[in-house]
Amino acid sequence: MEPSLENYLHAQIPLSEAMGLHVQEASLQKIILKAPLKNNINHKKTVFGGSLHAVATLACWSLIYVNLKEKNIQAEIVIQESQIRYLAPVTADFTASCAMPDMQLWTRFITMLEKKHKARIHLTSQVYQENVLCVDYQGSFVAIRNPTCP
Amino acid sequence: MEPSLENYLHAQIPLSEAMGLHVQEASLQKIILKAPLKNNINHKKTVFGGSLHAVATLACWSLIYVNLKEKNIQAEIVIQESQIRYLAPVTADFTASCAMPDMQLWTRFITMLEKKHKARIHLTSQVYQENVLCVDYQGSFVAIRNPTCP
Repeated sequence: MEPSLENYLHAQIPLSEAMGLHVQEASLQKIILKAPLKNNINHKKTVFGGSLHAVATLACWSLIYVNLKEKNIQAEIVIQESQIRYLAPVTADFTASCAMPDMQLWTRFITMLEKKHKARIHLTSQVYQENVLCVDYQGSFVAIRNPTCP
Repeated sequence: MEPSLENYLHAQIPLSEAMGLHVQEASLQKIILKAPLKNNINHKKTVFGGSLHAVATLACWSLIYVNLKEKNIQAEIVIQESQIRYLAPVTADFTASCAMPDMQLWTRFITMLEKKHKARIHLTSQVYQENVLCVDYQGSFVAIRNPTCP
């Protein structure tokens, strides 16, 4: 439970509240976001593909957000591109998770951000339902640091 | 203006109503969907990337939907995968459009759907703001026909 991240997302991105987004886990190692079928249902009574993409994007974005906040680095985090594969329909409330990537990649990202004030990182997110991988998401995110801030 | 498509989307996919989605054009040749900044704003006061992806997906889905309806072909239309590039921030109300692809590709799609009851098509959608391309989207959609229906 990480009410502050959830409150931040709901306040800053009203669509996250409309999607019924709930932060289930927000550690420095992993983000798990949960959303109900009801708010995100489509004509086939499964989860709308746009909702799956949005929640996966927010899981990745949030992982960078909580880590930069922890390091007191003020930076804008921008999604640059993403790819998503819908492997199986999602028929119930769902979670999208994003785990810390390889530590070498992460360290390079932070070093670049500190030295060049801009760095890019590639993250992945997955949606599982009863141990079946339903959605595989990859996104490239760019962080742009304000050089006058910490 | 195509109130029936708009009503269908709002009724079947409640998130489309939460996004303030409006059908600006729904011809057999082109779909243009419009959505306001207000419902889709993020922490940077630009349009949330998840909303841009969702509206682009619905533009492509709708192009197939209106064309199959016109031909009285009953089929499920499923998004299989997509790629999106965010080229510039969107800072105002926006439209996502999807135009009919090359006619040979479309004819092959319909022929496959009629013969094999399943066919795949690749569509693109773009978001422009004041003549600047802000979002470039590509999606693969599969239609699965119910063989007992027309």
